[in-house]
Amino acid sequence: MTERREGEVELTTDPAGLPPDGHVVFIGRIRSPWTSREECPRNMAQARERAAPASVEVAPDYRPGLAGLEGASHVAILTWLNRSARNLIVQKPRHALHPKGVFALRSPARPNPIGLHVTRLTGLDIGAGILTLDAMDVLDGTPVIDIKPYYASTDSVPEATVSKSE
Amino acid sequence: MTERREGEVELTTDPAGLPPDGHVVFIGRIRSPWTSREECPRNMAQARERAAPASVEVAPDYRPGLAGLEGASHVAILTWLNRSARNLIVQKPRHALHPKGVFALRSPARPNPIGLHVTRLTGLDIGAGILTLDAMDVLDGTPVIDIKPYYASTDSVPEATVSKSE
Repeated sequence: MTERREGEVELTTDPAGLPPDGHVVFIGRIRSPWTSREECPRNMAQARERAAPASVEVAPDYRPGLAGLEGASHVAILTWLNRSARNLIVQKPRHALHPKGVFALRSPARPNPIGLHVTRLTGLDIGAGILTLDAMDVLDGTPVIDIKPYYASTDSVPEATVSKSE
Repeated sequence: MTERREGEVELTTDPAGLPPDGHVVFIGRIRSPWTSREECPRNMAQARERAAPASVEVAPDYRPGLAGLEGASHVAILTWLNRSARNLIVQKPRHALHPKGVFALRSPARPNPIGLHVTRLTGLDIGAGILTLDAMDVLDGTPVIDIKPYYASTDSVPEATVSKSE
């Protein structure tokens, strides 16, 4: 591992150059109002504050996989954040006091660049492959690799805490 | 797409055989009490009922990425469910009334076989790369591809609903 800046640490071997353990296929794309990193919200809380709806466009082959999703009020969407570095194992986010390990952060720069976004499903057109969402915190065109119904019984933990001082 | 059984539908082209749009690397493995599909809980609710702790073993290169995770009470773990078919776009789960699209199900058989598991973090040994979890609903040895701190502010939606009749 080599030092980067301000306590950041790179992996010796970049996961982007490692032999694949598995491969992903893109099932669709995010359509969002955000076309530059500067304007893109940094998380779903910021995205909701902007009150800008977004959507997922599901590729034709995968649209039959949406049948029954009209019964879900919320979905968990997994995106593939392929513009981000994969080798930053310790990172110092802007405005953070101390560097942190990547697995203690929601940074898009991760060994496997997968984003997890919990959103409200405000509309569904299965024939057109369009899911309308209340908000989204990634750039327009970001690939989507999975969509899951959100179950409050197992996915919602209102009492969960993350210490700010760590 | 070709019909399978009981309303199930296969994709014409199996994602397992498509050219990769991206690749994943395994950052660790789940250690769980479950060594056969028959005994493995079908979801996190069932896993919690069995009151059997589990853990994640993070591979040595990725252990520095755990720094700071001690501040999180809960984590979202992404697993790679590589024993499952990737071409079942419409599925009829056992005990379900009607077939459903894969994106309306939490089935491990998905175009990208990624599992999402929200768990309580009951212990953390960064040097040994061990996260102790309250429960886990996948087989022992299942590869792990990401670990994220769980934020109640954006990840918890207690009022989310999924209609049973759909």
